[in-house]
Amino acid sequence: MPSISDRGRLMPASPIRRLVPYSEEAKRKGRKVYHLNIGQPDIPTPEVAINALRNINQKVLEYSHSAGNESYRRKLATYYQKIGINIDFHEILITTGGSEAILFALMSCINPGEEVIIPEPFYANYNGFATTAGVKIVPVTSYIKDDFALPAITDIEKKISSKTKGIIVCNPNNPTGYLYSKEELLHLKEIVKKHDLFLFSDEAYREFCYDGAEHFSAMNLEGIENNVIMLDSVSKRYSECGIRIGALITKNKEIISTALKFAQARLSPPGLGQIAAEASIDTPDNYFKEVNREYTARRNFMVEALNKIPGVYCPKPKGAFYTVVKLPVDDAEKFAQWLLEEFDYNNQTVMVAPGSGFYSTPGSGKNEVRIAYVLKIEDLKNAMMILEEALAIYPGREKF
Amino acid sequence: MPSISDRGRLMPASPIRRLVPYSEEAKRKGRKVYHLNIGQPDIPTPEVAINALRNINQKVLEYSHSAGNESYRRKLATYYQKIGINIDFHEILITTGGSEAILFALMSCINPGEEVIIPEPFYANYNGFATTAGVKIVPVTSYIKDDFALPAITDIEKKISSKTKGIIVCNPNNPTGYLYSKEELLHLKEIVKKHDLFLFSDEAYREFCYDGAEHFSAMNLEGIENNVIMLDSVSKRYSECGIRIGALITKNKEIISTALKFAQARLSPPGLGQIAAEASIDTPDNYFKEVNREYTARRNFMVEALNKIPGVYCPKPKGAFYTVVKLPVDDAEKFAQWLLEEFDYNNQTVMVAPGSGFYSTPGSGKNEVRIAYVLKIEDLKNAMMILEEALAIYPGREKF
Repeated sequence: MPSISDRGRLMPASPIRRLVPYSEEAKRKGRKVYHLNIGQPDIPTPEVAINALRNINQKVLEYSHSAGNESYRRKLATYYQKIGINIDFHEILITTGGSEAILFALMSCINPGEEVIIPEPFYANYNGFATTAGVKIVPVTSYIKDDFALPAITDIEKKISSKTKGIIVCNPNNPTGYLYSKEELLHLKEIVKKHDLFLFSDEAYREFCYDGAEHFSAMNLEGIENNVIMLDSVSKRYSECGIRIGALITKNKEIISTALKFAQARLSPPGLGQIAAEASIDTPDNYFKEVNREYTARRNFMVEALNKIPGVYCPKPKGAFYTVVKLPVDDAEKFAQWLLEEFDYNNQTVMVAPGSGFYSTPGSGKNEVRIAYVLKIEDLKNAMMILEEALAIYPGREKF
Repeated sequence: MPSISDRGRLMPASPIRRLVPYSEEAKRKGRKVYHLNIGQPDIPTPEVAINALRNINQKVLEYSHSAGNESYRRKLATYYQKIGINIDFHEILITTGGSEAILFALMSCINPGEEVIIPEPFYANYNGFATTAGVKIVPVTSYIKDDFALPAITDIEKKISSKTKGIIVCNPNNPTGYLYSKEELLHLKEIVKKHDLFLFSDEAYREFCYDGAEHFSAMNLEGIENNVIMLDSVSKRYSECGIRIGALITKNKEIISTALKFAQARLSPPGLGQIAAEASIDTPDNYFKEVNREYTARRNFMVEALNKIPGVYCPKPKGAFYTVVKLPVDDAEKFAQWLLEEFDYNNQTVMVAPGSGFYSTPGSGKNEVRIAYVLKIEDLKNAMMILEEALAIYPGREKF
């Protein structure tokens, strides 16, 4: 039997999925598990999207253009223009989820063995895409004591080597919920310009900004238009994660035409998803106001509840629907497993994502977990109570 | 401005797409273009698939399992069992089109720099996936004089080096339409066993076998179960190319669990496509009989019409809906461009795919084109007449 590839062996298993068998076992035992571990929102998909599918009138479900249907790209350009990002439809490549946009960007821009800098903690699947593309991730640590703000320029510059080709930022950030300010992006611009790097800006959570904070897109950084590649997704914006529609967007014509070659090899992005995504652009503004109101309330409740638990620290993030929380435990990975395997409170428990999976530096994030506030407030209330009970009796609790 | 990656530069542009600007220009001039160049069937998608979408009742279009919905995998296993391929749903990974199945298979099994042998002419996008995965394609030529039968074992073995990790076959074959016999597959089995290689079997055209010929799946080769990886797609089977649903199937547990890691990084295959694909399994048998009757008639007409044109040779393929045809021209690439740029017959022309794009050996396929018989007979009649007229006056016509 021939051996699998080294890349296959090195490919990281998702740090969240590792715990899935334990959560399944807990459910088999009849326990209710509150899922704080995944970014699957419970918000309904806009009706305009579902209705577009119900009214489908194609006779043949044909391939679309490799770059995505022109009608969708044109309409998507108007969405960006409306929010102050000046994009022409030729600068858009529709992808199979934001995931494929990230992969195409790395494949198009970075050689195997070259490096990309990412502030950690970072979205764990960047590891998988980097392994797929043979690219080395060089982490630059951000800290919970700073609410995970962008590391200092000097810290980032220390990580730049002759192999560095770019920087990836996720804004608002998954997993920290941190919203990078315009000033922080201007700092990034300086580095990018000085060292002639690509700036990969993952803006999938753009719509999720709270307390009136405004999102500043990397596409609006003047003077580095050819360096910036925006990665986007409709998954969270319209709560339609399953349709797998994203986009790679850049003013750099060479990157668009290179990414298009990767896109042509896989023929086309999902056609049905494009129908839903195109229709979603007509989602009424009220929908977003309601969603924002709901997430703000969830966040406010959750941050307060977490900070009331002895030994717990939770920053108050301004974006996305995640937060990285410091827990008074020996090892958050063990704690997460214990919650599913051994603990219950009135036959209920919670599932959290261990922080270490979001760090590239060994040993980091050991007493942190990522919590997604994608549950209704009633459920969050229960989940926070259960977490508090669990921390009170967890054998590996840190002593004060 | 930072430079793109070497891989991005080396990534081949689709040999078919290169001509697209010329076809668009021809259409702008008001010419009707008969598309014999692409594998987009005109056959209607089964109504059960479209109806499943019309009756969609999800409130949230959620992520599915990374390996695909369990309900779909279970039902897909019954489809395989019905056609005599014994597969359990755990041996199935649902992918984003057959394209992603090929990419995951290469990524999981082959290291950058290692080699895979493919009988040429071959599906041109294998080049793109190989470039993406850093894998080297080693062609072993099949010949039109043999109707593109599997090359002799000795010819294949000559190509095996210490870097060879596997063999890719597409059966029935795109672009040649050749249907490999059970005997040919048994020959492949001997090679695979002797040299401990992977056998990647792309069976996307399984349902398209004519003249009562039966398809023999590589999954049914006994004794090499851990070597065989079947790559499949619903695109052609149910004429739903645009939904992007395929599958990677293998009895090799290590490959399934490795491919699943690549699948987890991209989260899930398209959810809406899975709804359509799952419903499609209930397509009545009549549909396939009708489709088979239609393609048989198209093939019979087309092969006869082509062979009547002086200097043209067309084998009579037993599978898929393509054929590679020898034309009396200096350079089929130039001829294909000339058809679009300079020729018209009553304001009509045809678009064909130059043969060279399907070969890896430089200079091969220069007087061949791939023709897809995906048009109604009336249109095929016109297209064949136009092709005959064009060949009669083409300046680069081969002299007899």
